[in-house]
Amino acid sequence: MSAKGVKIVTIGGGSSYTPELIEGFIKRYDELPVRELWLVDIPEGEEKLKIVGELARRMVKKAGVPLDIHLTLDRRRALEGADFVTTQFRVGGLQARAKDEQIPLKYGVIGQETNGPGGLFKGLRTIPVILDIIRDMKELCPDAWLINFTNPAGMVTEAVLRYSDHKKAVGLCNVPIGMRMGVAKLFNVDASRVHIDFAGLNHMVFGLNVYLDGNNIMDQLIDRLTNSDKAGMTMRNIADLGWEPDFLKGLKLLPCPYHRYYFQTSKMFEEELEAAKKVGTRAEVVQKLEEELFELYKDPNLNVKPPQLEKRGGAYYSDAACSLICSIYNDKRDIQTVNTQNNGAIASIPSESAVEVNCIITKEGPKPIAVGDLPVAVRGLVQQIKSFERVAAEAAVTGDYYTALLAMTINPLVPSDTIAKQILNEMLEAHKEYLPQFFKRTSV
Amino acid sequence: MSAKGVKIVTIGGGSSYTPELIEGFIKRYDELPVRELWLVDIPEGEEKLKIVGELARRMVKKAGVPLDIHLTLDRRRALEGADFVTTQFRVGGLQARAKDEQIPLKYGVIGQETNGPGGLFKGLRTIPVILDIIRDMKELCPDAWLINFTNPAGMVTEAVLRYSDHKKAVGLCNVPIGMRMGVAKLFNVDASRVHIDFAGLNHMVFGLNVYLDGNNIMDQLIDRLTNSDKAGMTMRNIADLGWEPDFLKGLKLLPCPYHRYYFQTSKMFEEELEAAKKVGTRAEVVQKLEEELFELYKDPNLNVKPPQLEKRGGAYYSDAACSLICSIYNDKRDIQTVNTQNNGAIASIPSESAVEVNCIITKEGPKPIAVGDLPVAVRGLVQQIKSFERVAAEAAVTGDYYTALLAMTINPLVPSDTIAKQILNEMLEAHKEYLPQFFKRTSV
Amino acid sequence: MSAKGVKIVTIGGGSSYTPELIEGFIKRYDELPVRELWLVDIPEGEEKLKIVGELARRMVKKAGVPLDIHLTLDRRRALEGADFVTTQFRVGGLQARAKDEQIPLKYGVIGQETNGPGGLFKGLRTIPVILDIIRDMKELCPDAWLINFTNPAGMVTEAVLRYSDHKKAVGLCNVPIGMRMGVAKLFNVDASRVHIDFAGLNHMVFGLNVYLDGNNIMDQLIDRLTNSDKAGMTMRNIADLGWEPDFLKGLKLLPCPYHRYYFQTSKMFEEELEAAKKVGTRAEVVQKLEEELFELYKDPNLNVKPPQLEKRGGAYYSDAACSLICSIYNDKRDIQTVNTQNNGAIASIPSESAVEVNCIITKEGPKPIAVGDLPVAVRGLVQQIKSFERVAAEAAVTGDYYTALLAMTINPLVPSDTIAKQILNEMLEAHKEYLPQFFKRTSV
Amino acid sequence: MSAKGVKIVTIGGGSSYTPELIEGFIKRYDELPVRELWLVDIPEGEEKLKIVGELARRMVKKAGVPLDIHLTLDRRRALEGADFVTTQFRVGGLQARAKDEQIPLKYGVIGQETNGPGGLFKGLRTIPVILDIIRDMKELCPDAWLINFTNPAGMVTEAVLRYSDHKKAVGLCNVPIGMRMGVAKLFNVDASRVHIDFAGLNHMVFGLNVYLDGNNIMDQLIDRLTNSDKAGMTMRNIADLGWEPDFLKGLKLLPCPYHRYYFQTSKMFEEELEAAKKVGTRAEVVQKLEEELFELYKDPNLNVKPPQLEKRGGAYYSDAACSLICSIYNDKRDIQTVNTQNNGAIASIPSESAVEVNCIITKEGPKPIAVGDLPVAVRGLVQQIKSFERVAAEAAVTGDYYTALLAMTINPLVPSDTIAKQILNEMLEAHKEYLPQFFKRTSV
Repeated sequence: MSAKGVKIVTIGGGSSYTPELIEGFIKRYDELPVRELWLVDIPEGEEKLKIVGELARRMVKKAGVPLDIHLTLDRRRALEGADFVTTQFRVGGLQARAKDEQIPLKYGVIGQETNGPGGLFKGLRTIPVILDIIRDMKELCPDAWLINFTNPAGMVTEAVLRYSDHKKAVGLCNVPIGMRMGVAKLFNVDASRVHIDFAGLNHMVFGLNVYLDGNNIMDQLIDRLTNSDKAGMTMRNIADLGWEPDFLKGLKLLPCPYHRYYFQTSKMFEEELEAAKKVGTRAEVVQKLEEELFELYKDPNLNVKPPQLEKRGGAYYSDAACSLICSIYNDKRDIQTVNTQNNGAIASIPSESAVEVNCIITKEGPKPIAVGDLPVAVRGLVQQIKSFERVAAEAAVTGDYYTALLAMTINPLVPSDTIAKQILNEMLEAHKEYLPQFFKRTSV
Repeated sequence: MSAKGVKIVTIGGGSSYTPELIEGFIKRYDELPVRELWLVDIPEGEEKLKIVGELARRMVKKAGVPLDIHLTLDRRRALEGADFVTTQFRVGGLQARAKDEQIPLKYGVIGQETNGPGGLFKGLRTIPVILDIIRDMKELCPDAWLINFTNPAGMVTEAVLRYSDHKKAVGLCNVPIGMRMGVAKLFNVDASRVHIDFAGLNHMVFGLNVYLDGNNIMDQLIDRLTNSDKAGMTMRNIADLGWEPDFLKGLKLLPCPYHRYYFQTSKMFEEELEAAKKVGTRAEVVQKLEEELFELYKDPNLNVKPPQLEKRGGAYYSDAACSLICSIYNDKRDIQTVNTQNNGAIASIPSESAVEVNCIITKEGPKPIAVGDLPVAVRGLVQQIKSFERVAAEAAVTGDYYTALLAMTINPLVPSDTIAKQILNEMLEAHKEYLPQFFKRTSV
Repeated sequence: MSAKGVKIVTIGGGSSYTPELIEGFIKRYDELPVRELWLVDIPEGEEKLKIVGELARRMVKKAGVPLDIHLTLDRRRALEGADFVTTQFRVGGLQARAKDEQIPLKYGVIGQETNGPGGLFKGLRTIPVILDIIRDMKELCPDAWLINFTNPAGMVTEAVLRYSDHKKAVGLCNVPIGMRMGVAKLFNVDASRVHIDFAGLNHMVFGLNVYLDGNNIMDQLIDRLTNSDKAGMTMRNIADLGWEPDFLKGLKLLPCPYHRYYFQTSKMFEEELEAAKKVGTRAEVVQKLEEELFELYKDPNLNVKPPQLEKRGGAYYSDAACSLICSIYNDKRDIQTVNTQNNGAIASIPSESAVEVNCIITKEGPKPIAVGDLPVAVRGLVQQIKSFERVAAEAAVTGDYYTALLAMTINPLVPSDTIAKQILNEMLEAHKEYLPQFFKRTSV
Repeated sequence: MSAKGVKIVTIGGGSSYTPELIEGFIKRYDELPVRELWLVDIPEGEEKLKIVGELARRMVKKAGVPLDIHLTLDRRRALEGADFVTTQFRVGGLQARAKDEQIPLKYGVIGQETNGPGGLFKGLRTIPVILDIIRDMKELCPDAWLINFTNPAGMVTEAVLRYSDHKKAVGLCNVPIGMRMGVAKLFNVDASRVHIDFAGLNHMVFGLNVYLDGNNIMDQLIDRLTNSDKAGMTMRNIADLGWEPDFLKGLKLLPCPYHRYYFQTSKMFEEELEAAKKVGTRAEVVQKLEEELFELYKDPNLNVKPPQLEKRGGAYYSDAACSLICSIYNDKRDIQTVNTQNNGAIASIPSESAVEVNCIITKEGPKPIAVGDLPVAVRGLVQQIKSFERVAAEAAVTGDYYTALLAMTINPLVPSDTIAKQILNEMLEAHKEYLPQFFKRTSV
């Protein structure tokens, strides 16, 4: 790290999440002296970048920390000499998300941002951009860590591990921390007393064991989850469906909220369809929330993170990023749950693939804790999603139509090869602008 | 083998398939001198046993081979000193199959004999009986080989490998031989010129490479499969749906007919629903075919396998069994595709699990040919079915309700935990008579 | 843990190491409230038990902690309700060690306590006793942790994992902590600033990466190790031979002192032979040290650990044990290097085997950090020692002569099957009294 | 294959083994129509090439087969359009072999052509030449198969698999066929009745199971091997030392003759030392045999393979090569034991490494039969030799001194890092002419 303190670059800096990030850095200033924070965005995001950037400046001023906020549209200039690069952008914005959510629905298929056809297309749009950022990093800040929390974080991390030689890359998600908070709430205890052995993939992570004060409480937890019909283990952006109690009794694991897409496919589809009719897709809901947030952010008297942000759905995200950066910087060797190279930690997942697993966070990056094999009942599903992620990442890099169709068809939420092809064709056309790799051939 | 020649016991000997078996033994008599064939059945099957047994006797007489046909309801007496035991029974008969096919349909789920809820219940009924036969074999003919072609053959083989210590057990299926015949027909060549590298699980097997005269013809094969809308690669008992050509171009593998349940779930369900309305379920269709066959078998002038049997849907089944027995007996070291212990042949599938893979057939049993890892795109699905098979086998052995629900829910054809529970409950009740392991507790 | 505080049982309590253990418990009393410490020994050790027990009592009195010291020859009574059981005994005492060291020398083979024929025989004598203790524990304190630091700790842990169903067992060694101290000394820094990624087997552990303040210093370390002829990386009980600098440059790892037996076999043998002539075997040297220590311990005015104990060769041993117990008790989740079940942490070593590796220490025991595969150059040697440990453990449990000969012959320090047999025969006879499992047959 | 018949190129065609190769092709002419055989050699071998080439021509003339023998020093011209390339050359000739055998002896270390320091140096000299041939093949005959029987065949195959992208390469050895012949002789039966499950590495291969007429006879075999002091299982070029009977009883495997170097290191060394004094090294013995053979070959009346060739020590070598070529050409799918990519056949050996194992020989090359894990007792040694082979191959390709020293030191026959360095230095100097990769730096 340079003598003048830590330099952090946030790509997609105009995001509504940024105030949480700022708060995180302010809170940790003593152990993580961030001197420069570069918020980078694209021309279309310039206005939001300014609004959120001004708020950020008011926040650091109020907090009295000497953290310089830089706002820029020039990514390469920002990256020069960076120590950490965080990515939180959305290629195509909420309009693209809306398409990811709407198009599959027309074919009777779940439309969701990180799962199924929507997840595939978010990956196809995002991966080339991430690999492009990495190419810039190799040149301008080769020793910097990439902390990615752009979704689908698992597929993106897989692509980075397979298609770049930049090994200093970590994928981050707020699901594990949310599950831990949920358990704490359910038992009405402070979250610091709860530990969970997490293992799986991003949005496909299981709590293998859950501890309260070091004692395994899985049985009590399942009791609580199955006795209350509205258990605490839900994410704000997922419909609040309870689990079938007897299923959890057989499973003996803590599923994550996204598992509902796989173990409750039909229910989730119906809920989604209804919600789309009533309140619009999630993208539309978020669009409104964002607009409200930015109205708040504009207030020149606001100089702290507004509490309304927590409703946005990404709670703990930025905090998780700050916490990870802080542990790498200080070689803390504490346990955090991140997306990183498996390295044998989960048997049956290739050693070189990305997994989401508890790690020791060191100055050299995360080191995964070995969990052996996943329980038989979930091992297959996890591997199926890994197959999907790998084929999807290949399609994103090659722009090969057949590979994209293969990825779509093997996704467990897609009911047939023919429907896969229909959805693929419509979505390719809809997202054409952001998928140059698939259309380069037409120019020949 | 005893000096007086080979003794074979066929459990479920009253099956309509038996004449094919007899034909197979007659054809191979010179190299496989079967002196005693014991056809065993249960009291409910006694009449059919007699009919088919008499036909068998006429067949061997006509052929002039000194093969004694014994008909009995006493399984233990038959097993004494056996060299090979083949199993081709159906617990609960075609009525049970009809329930396996009908009940799931009511819940919008595919009803099929070896996949989804139907496959699960066929396994739950069959596995305890197979394990019981093995207990008898350990006592009465410990050196005998069990050649199982009772479905679901993969799940049954998995259960035998995990829950018995009789390692001389092989699962057999006619799908691989049918695929090879199909390719031969498509290229209009003799099947002996076609080789296929098979690997996967039962009813979940892929042709990794396809050779004609030793040359890999996968590309031409996919061309032919995708250019003709009615490709030859179908099984008589599966609706004749073509593959999406571009999907096969991405896949670059030869799928088996049963893969349609997974890659064309919605299409298969609709076809099935329509067929059920028009011609009844497959069980009902087979019921009629069987009745017609037994009428034929009764003809005292019939002394060969009637050609109508081939329409029955199990073509090559008995021939595959005879061929396997012959190669074990003669230590032939030829290549056959069977269900056996993986032993590392397919990476990512546990070494001790059952797989369906090309093997060298020796006197000590099948030795699998290593294929390394399955292609990424299908690896996950195969592992998911293996997860299902393992949890299902555990449920069959323990009779644990939660484990059965877990198996049902993780099956990729079942759309939610709640529907899983509804189907499970209705099917448990419907098959109560054949599932004592699940009802023992109520009697306590 | 019982309300009245932690109960610890130390088997081999009359050991000269015990004062270090006492010191460790006193030092940690605030976070690890040990209320009862039971020192257990066998009749032959009664006198030493009394001496060391009285010193222990004076130490706790001086420190003013309410820790009750119990001295007993009744192991079963001591075990009742224990929370932790530590084992530090030596079956056959130093006389047996002397034989382990002397007999191989006669055949031109290294005679050492934990490697080669000596290590094999120490294992053959120790493993049945450990398994016997575990049987008692299952009955009398089934929830207690076994913390074994009786050598050969790797082979013993392997045997416990394979031949008992008590999973709460950890093997402990002072080599990793010694290596860390050595590096700190070499760089003249406090040991807390040094981290090492340890992986391998007991007495066969490598430092894969060495960090100072989070920065990898392997290159500088190898420079220092190869530039000074008397590097700090040695254990007091191993002759002080330098490494061939160019070998370390190729290896790019930090070997442990015991690796000299394998990479410098001939040199080590010659050193040992010379030492045996001049000062006697290590057992004889230790015998004298022990006598001097017990003379000191008898002094009724002594009420602290005497500094002379540190010369004994087992520095950090007891401290490592206290530290481990403290982390388990408090669910500390810090990193310690222990012998535990691999669970995939080191690829190519079976998942169920014992390895020595960095672990997170939790209330549920150690969880290993995945290191992926060991570097190619050392992978084979580590696996060879694992082969040896497994065959040796099998011989210890079965008392099978051929298996013992197999273990002896495959040990890389033994130069031929014939010499293996000669050494085996002489050592079996020499240790007859402590190897009943090998002589039971003669009584039939 | 071209219409005009099979074209084979033999590099090192002037070898004394060539007549066996010719005999093999003549014998198989009906199924393997070799039309052109190009014998290639280097200028130093021109005279021998002519002598053996003329004999070859007389042999084919006598046999009446239309096989054209071409003699050339122009390797590239020979390779054009080849179907199979066999390699049987010796870089540096018998003089180099003599050094491989003599130099280690001076340091008290076994001097042998394919094991220990000698094997390492044969590999360092051979691998770059093989990789050079492959580069020519990629250009001139990219579809040709490389059948290598230049030793050390295992290390060479490992290097080809790792450092070239020509996957059509097989390593061949006569040890497995010799072991099979030996067993047949011991039981006085025809070799066709004996089958052995071979698995391991080249010159480190074990018979896991041995069958006579399909029945496992391992127990009887060990009885015979241990009752006779001069068992048949020896190779002509290895001293005839018996195994310790009780060791084989514990091992329960059939070791290969080269295992004596590892399980009888001291005995082998002494034998070798004595032989070197009495009759010279093996290279010197072979030198004389070769001279005698070439005298015979010169006889213009000789038109068959002279029986004296069989004493040369390489019996079955060329026959194995002909047999392999014949099975590939005809897609025979028979079982042969070759060196090929592991692909999971032997667990714990990396999937991409070379192993020696039973394979099905197809037109697409060898497909290994899965054996699962090797028995525990030998697993470690096999992996250690694999470690050595991999590091040695890396040294051969990079010419890195430290890597070469690492390879030498980790070889189990080398007793210390210091001796390793002494031998390395002397051998590097002695073979300087053939190791340009290690001396390129001096020219800078």
